[in-house]
Amino acid sequence: MTKQYYSYEDFRDDLKILTKKIDKPFDTIIGTSRGGLSMAQMLGEYYDIRQVYAINSIGYDDTTKLDEVRVFNIPDLNSSKSVIIVDDIVDSGDTILKALEILKAKFPQINFYVASIFYKKSAKIAPDWFVQEPKEWIEFFWSIDLKD
Amino acid sequence: MTKQYYSYEDFRDDLKILTKKIDKPFDTIIGTSRGGLSMAQMLGEYYDIRQVYAINSIGYDDTTKLDEVRVFNIPDLNSSKSVIIVDDIVDSGDTILKALEILKAKFPQINFYVASIFYKKSAKIAPDWFVQEPKEWIEFFWSIDLKD
Repeated sequence: MTKQYYSYEDFRDDLKILTKKIDKPFDTIIGTSRGGLSMAQMLGEYYDIRQVYAINSIGYDDTTKLDEVRVFNIPDLNSSKSVIIVDDIVDSGDTILKALEILKAKFPQINFYVASIFYKKSAKIAPDWFVQEPKEWIEFFWSIDLKD
Repeated sequence: MTKQYYSYEDFRDDLKILTKKIDKPFDTIIGTSRGGLSMAQMLGEYYDIRQVYAINSIGYDDTTKLDEVRVFNIPDLNSSKSVIIVDDIVDSGDTILKALEILKAKFPQINFYVASIFYKKSAKIAPDWFVQEPKEWIEFFWSIDLKD
């Protein structure tokens, strides 16, 4: 599979597109670690939201996919009404599905949305908003730019 | 006070310098939200560390400084031995001081280090590693690049 380098400029431009697509209000941003952290930070700055949190998951590495995804470090959402979960890519959808399951069970009064830059149509769940489908293997700038 | 635009390229180059300075091993990265999140993601990728977490704080806005900083959303560090806390700037030092106080009390067996890009010498605590002193008000790319 060929690789597509995804630069900071690509990321910035795609986030601008994403902000034009997002059409529901939210007061809290949760970034999936690690993939959604930069995105969470930049969207938090753009929307002037300081309730920017992270969640973690394990069960996925570059070559194998485990049936069970564990999601942990669930933030305190007691002062949140509407939460957007952000991720760089919704690939299988396993992480987002598990995160939504846990978050909705723990905070049934909160609206949860999902936004990603990339979304594979084969995923088990679609984000509410995304920017593009990946055509190739995406080599994100955050994965390689420090390794030059 | 004049403003200095701090671009993604500046950030990338400074993180490369920072990785050359960091001379202690660690297995976990905690980014302060929001400022340290992109940094945590990129360093996590560089060091191939998946234990990348976030902590939150309140008590600081752009114009006023409250005496009390509250640090919350403390991650589960039970499988960590050595943790680096990363932040874009150590300014007053209040957030890092409070974070260290809480983390060391909760996890007395863990070594904690602090790394930042910017460090003001007037801060109450110095990071173990940093890259530069801010000469002006820093306008980080993540704060303004989506607002063009």
